[in-house]
Amino acid sequence: MSELVQEKVNQAVQILQEKNIDCWLTFVRETSSGGDPALPLIYGLDLTWHSALILTRTGERYAIVGAFEAEAARRTGAYTMVIPYNEAISRSLLHTLERINPSKIAINISQDDVLADGLTVGMYRTLLEFFDGTPWEQRLVSAEEIIRALRGRKMPGEVRRLRGAIRTTEEIFAKTFAYAEPGMSELQIGEFMHAQVDALGLTTAWERVGCPTVNAGPDSPVGHVGPSEITLQRGHLLHIDFGVKQDGYCADIQRMAYYLAPGETRPPEPVQHGFDTVVRAIQAALKAMKPGVTGLAVDQIARDIVTGAGYPEFKHATGHHLGQLTHDGAGVLGPAWERYGGTPFYPLEAGQVYTLEPSLAVPGYGFVGLEEDVLVTERGAVFLSEAQTALIVK
Amino acid sequence: MSELVQEKVNQAVQILQEKNIDCWLTFVRETSSGGDPALPLIYGLDLTWHSALILTRTGERYAIVGAFEAEAARRTGAYTMVIPYNEAISRSLLHTLERINPSKIAINISQDDVLADGLTVGMYRTLLEFFDGTPWEQRLVSAEEIIRALRGRKMPGEVRRLRGAIRTTEEIFAKTFAYAEPGMSELQIGEFMHAQVDALGLTTAWERVGCPTVNAGPDSPVGHVGPSEITLQRGHLLHIDFGVKQDGYCADIQRMAYYLAPGETRPPEPVQHGFDTVVRAIQAALKAMKPGVTGLAVDQIARDIVTGAGYPEFKHATGHHLGQLTHDGAGVLGPAWERYGGTPFYPLEAGQVYTLEPSLAVPGYGFVGLEEDVLVTERGAVFLSEAQTALIVK
Repeated sequence: MSELVQEKVNQAVQILQEKNIDCWLTFVRETSSGGDPALPLIYGLDLTWHSALILTRTGERYAIVGAFEAEAARRTGAYTMVIPYNEAISRSLLHTLERINPSKIAINISQDDVLADGLTVGMYRTLLEFFDGTPWEQRLVSAEEIIRALRGRKMPGEVRRLRGAIRTTEEIFAKTFAYAEPGMSELQIGEFMHAQVDALGLTTAWERVGCPTVNAGPDSPVGHVGPSEITLQRGHLLHIDFGVKQDGYCADIQRMAYYLAPGETRPPEPVQHGFDTVVRAIQAALKAMKPGVTGLAVDQIARDIVTGAGYPEFKHATGHHLGQLTHDGAGVLGPAWERYGGTPFYPLEAGQVYTLEPSLAVPGYGFVGLEEDVLVTERGAVFLSEAQTALIVK
Repeated sequence: MSELVQEKVNQAVQILQEKNIDCWLTFVRETSSGGDPALPLIYGLDLTWHSALILTRTGERYAIVGAFEAEAARRTGAYTMVIPYNEAISRSLLHTLERINPSKIAINISQDDVLADGLTVGMYRTLLEFFDGTPWEQRLVSAEEIIRALRGRKMPGEVRRLRGAIRTTEEIFAKTFAYAEPGMSELQIGEFMHAQVDALGLTTAWERVGCPTVNAGPDSPVGHVGPSEITLQRGHLLHIDFGVKQDGYCADIQRMAYYLAPGETRPPEPVQHGFDTVVRAIQAALKAMKPGVTGLAVDQIARDIVTGAGYPEFKHATGHHLGQLTHDGAGVLGPAWERYGGTPFYPLEAGQVYTLEPSLAVPGYGFVGLEEDVLVTERGAVFLSEAQTALIVK
């Protein structure tokens, strides 16, 4: 990953220039116990003692770290100045800031974006103690827009890794729909998918207990609950939400099949109508996606198609960023609900990768949800997943 | 783990009574992207939307969570009141606090203890916005001492899990010293140990790249760097720092061997003296450990034995807590250095599990470090690991 870290650090310097921010300070400790979500992007390793990563708009890259981690910092190849310390970081940190003399120092604080909110209150208070008697406290700003741009705009190497994770996920889906038969429980189908993931030496894209989510028929509870003892039956829908993490990047895809009841030769009309509605909503959302459009506008298009077809409004966003994490922070293709804060109002940018996942329920048959992974380019959005447009019928 | 979570939540209520704090609020979101280190102790699952876990000294246990995670919250069996919400948490949170009417609300903020510092600045600001027009902001205190006690005082089920991880680690050490021969590289020895870990379906107790740390002879760099191409030679020491994570708990052990040079029948005097000094330091530290003694005092005993025997002072603490994490927060058996903050001054308590790991170097031969895992009881400390008191000679 160290080449990717170097690329992302270079990209961060460009973003500092674009956003007109002199310097970005990531201040962490003991990151193996949880830690700042920005660290995997700009460092790729854990840091133990109080550590400061400082990037400047003029291209300087400082890593102030405990002496025993200095060699590891040098080996990242991403930092031009590695400054080791033995007992206390404060002197080196203050000295470095004096050299840079920034008029703005961005730090990792955000109410809206959990992935730009890595600074804890204790670490913030420690920083303010260090800054006592200096002008730095007055110059602090949020690094939210830096992190949003850095995380959101995928480099070619990141898109390549995402494509790989998506391809593997699609292969596992194909095997799973070939395997699943009426009479099998959701749990049995989930275990089959876990076995595929394990055989490839990969991990699931989110918590294993809920990845895959398997919904067989109308009685299966929807949401972040693992597969249950409910069995797949003829005349019901099978819905699966799943993804693998591969080379550090996540896929997130939903797929559907219908199991014909005795005497049926094709899915009943309500099932087909529900499925077609979700496909239409995804296609319309994709068409609307281009740089400058807000996530809110994209969400509205998908949402209106679902409600316009006579279904209740889905209680979640139409899509989210996808990257090193399944919910990759930054903006959301979502409605202006309190819990999304300002995130639906961010404009789309080229290089971003999103999911598109409208949903609805067809009473008596089951949950209908598809999820595609898409890349925003200068000329519009393109599918990274092979979009499902026909219901698998078994 | 859900039984253990129930036990820890019960223990937390007792600690609130002991510390005279009305209520403890853990406020989190999207914890799969990193999250509050207190969560694995008191919840054991991830939480996605803004979520509040509130424990009170009168024994109430509230979980205010997104509607789609309510069922998972109920299934923990640790929360008496699960309050789901759909769009915004603020109303339910404020309503619950009004019911409790606490004179102190502990939140997860700590400058000294990274594992008690899970509240981010963005989340803190959100909380203060919710609290606008209420008395709650004035009643906030740090949950540091609650979390320190909860994490530090291991329940019998936790000690049992720790013993298991230690036993497995010792078995891998035994196999490794039977395998290691002059001419092998550090990397080769490290790979052998990883293969043992993988075959058992376990993970390493800390970052795999530096677990094990393998030091063959005097030229091997000490610190958090992975094994290198340096080969093991006769007339040199082999030092390994390693542990597995098993059933959610970590072992952390260092072991040593000496490879006789041609003509030698036993280790040379400087090697034996270095080894015996470290053993003496560990034994003396163990003897000093009992409830009420500070970590500082224990550290000083081990440190004085090493410097008194003519070696330079080691540049790290004598020991740290061990639990779900290898560096399990709370206090440290360490000197009063700035970077340890107030942590060396905490008194030891029964039920705590620490490492003891003094070290020194023997020029020309290599690094000498042993590490034992010990449990503090009412009557003093006992080894959980089988303490190494004789140098393995090959």
